[in-house]
Amino acid sequence: MTIILSNDDVARLLTVPECMAALEEAYAELAAGRGVNRQRSDTLAGIESRPDALYSLKSMDGIAPKFGVGAVRINSDVVTWPKRGNNQRREKVPAAGGRWVGLVLLFSAETGEPLAIFPDGVLQRMRVASANGIAAKYMAREDATRVGLLGCGWQAGTQLMAICAARRIERIRCYSPTAENRIAFAAEMTPQLRVEVEPVASAEDAIAGADVVMCATNSIDPVYFESWIVPGVHISSIKRPEIEQRALKRADRLAIHTNETKPLHFTTRDLEVPETAAGKGWQLVDDVDFTKLPTLPDLVAGRYRGRTKPEEVTAFINNIGMGYQFAAAGAVIYRKAREQGVGHELPTEWFTEDVHP
Amino acid sequence: MTIILSNDDVARLLTVPECMAALEEAYAELAAGRGVNRQRSDTLAGIESRPDALYSLKSMDGIAPKFGVGAVRINSDVVTWPKRGNNQRREKVPAAGGRWVGLVLLFSAETGEPLAIFPDGVLQRMRVASANGIAAKYMAREDATRVGLLGCGWQAGTQLMAICAARRIERIRCYSPTAENRIAFAAEMTPQLRVEVEPVASAEDAIAGADVVMCATNSIDPVYFESWIVPGVHISSIKRPEIEQRALKRADRLAIHTNETKPLHFTTRDLEVPETAAGKGWQLVDDVDFTKLPTLPDLVAGRYRGRTKPEEVTAFINNIGMGYQFAAAGAVIYRKAREQGVGHELPTEWFTEDVHP
Repeated sequence: MTIILSNDDVARLLTVPECMAALEEAYAELAAGRGVNRQRSDTLAGIESRPDALYSLKSMDGIAPKFGVGAVRINSDVVTWPKRGNNQRREKVPAAGGRWVGLVLLFSAETGEPLAIFPDGVLQRMRVASANGIAAKYMAREDATRVGLLGCGWQAGTQLMAICAARRIERIRCYSPTAENRIAFAAEMTPQLRVEVEPVASAEDAIAGADVVMCATNSIDPVYFESWIVPGVHISSIKRPEIEQRALKRADRLAIHTNETKPLHFTTRDLEVPETAAGKGWQLVDDVDFTKLPTLPDLVAGRYRGRTKPEEVTAFINNIGMGYQFAAAGAVIYRKAREQGVGHELPTEWFTEDVHP
Repeated sequence: MTIILSNDDVARLLTVPECMAALEEAYAELAAGRGVNRQRSDTLAGIESRPDALYSLKSMDGIAPKFGVGAVRINSDVVTWPKRGNNQRREKVPAAGGRWVGLVLLFSAETGEPLAIFPDGVLQRMRVASANGIAAKYMAREDATRVGLLGCGWQAGTQLMAICAARRIERIRCYSPTAENRIAFAAEMTPQLRVEVEPVASAEDAIAGADVVMCATNSIDPVYFESWIVPGVHISSIKRPEIEQRALKRADRLAIHTNETKPLHFTTRDLEVPETAAGKGWQLVDDVDFTKLPTLPDLVAGRYRGRTKPEEVTAFINNIGMGYQFAAAGAVIYRKAREQGVGHELPTEWFTEDVHP
């Protein structure tokens, strides 16, 4: 049978610590050259009926032989770039009947068989957090107990779960510009983490005294600045622009998720994609060849030491995702789904064939 | 609803002439820069339990805005390279319970919604034939009536349907080394085409007097040779090596399917993929920069004339496929499936989500 899982199924089946354990093993495999990732591709075209939007078809593949699986992750999105005040944001429109479209297809890497299909949303959030959590395990001070969180949205909750799995966290302060968001977030997360999450009124308050600063925003401008650096801090980011360039240059130890620094890009002729056109692209640090920066697999494999002294400033940027993560974590989800009998079962014959090209 | 179609459904829903019509329009869109194709990627890894095989995960994407769709085509294969006598062949193993795994996912390029999922086998065969048929429409002599077919396997039947849609064909001779294969093939195709298909005992007999020679084999060595060339002939091939290099050099007019000359290639470390390692790769014509050769979209758009005189020798090589073809033809399949109520309907909510990464 091929099983169809929902986001709720995925959320019930996989915890952040389990996802971290699977990915840590998967990064070691990748560093050893026994796993393989196919660089993400973004394919874009205009939409005749909606001149304000583009259609974006993204895909990324990976094979994790140790986990016995391959995965393809697909995003099929209607994207707009609305202006809010002086800022231009990238927004995905829920044009599919009020919903979004992201799918993971999981295949057996031993028989080719399609094992499972499930939406990407919940796992996306977990695999992002897991990468930051694993990085913190290798880069934050061993005795780190205090976390400052910038951002209280979709990604922020799993980031806290991940850092709590990596270190014995005792104090968390969170900041988001909208008071009611940060208050609701803190109220929701405190019982889940069994660590007090305190909403505070400024970013400076959130990071004051923190051993680990976690940026988990959707900002395309910096939210953490050089002037805030204190000795021994670990700064963690889920995307390129969150940490100010000058702050990154001050870091004694700097690692990124992967050297695959940007996606392959395919468009119809003369199509302007705002973030590409604006050159807000993929530059990570001026004058640094980030295709050569140490990566998370390097950290896990012991090829790069994330921290050599307690007073060092360390930084990790989760610069771009990998289809490979969906393979490794997907294998765990699939195993548990089968054990627990979760998901809609469909005949595998619907997704296989008796001819081959 | 998202519909799941079978290969039988696809075969019933789409004819080769319909597929040709859709693709011809799609190539014009591509030439005009209004369609977009994402280059195929091949991702490969070893299989611990089967040292003789590799696991291959291929994907290709495309968006056809005029047809309102995007598509991702995925192949999840166990591949071996057995030696038969002196020849090494590439063989896909039906390891998924005796079956193979190739899937097309079709999405709305207006809402992102997943429209359909179906196996790729039947459409694969039609889109290959359609490209060769469209090329023949632009390159073969207007008065071509006689076809010589080399190969009587899976791809050969649709090749004949395509040439019969492109020209008023009156005589077909087919050759395959195994007598019983060519006899069965001719018996099967004659009533379907309403043109006599005559099985013959040698390639030379098949091509003698032919206005159009169609190569439709799975050979990785040449099957059509320079010495066989006669004035006015159109030579058609479904893969790179079928036409001898020297024959290609003799062609007055030469076009290929696409300038995307080879797939992106990702493997685990030190993995040897036989056809890549052997350098039997993607070289089409010595000393010819085939990234600059005229393409099928160039022919359709009138940028390159496929034939200027009756006595010219013309050749077309269907060098590599495009995910874009699956989008355009998939749109026709989907429309007809909905009109005719064909396929298993599944809730679109299974393949969409209320969160977005």
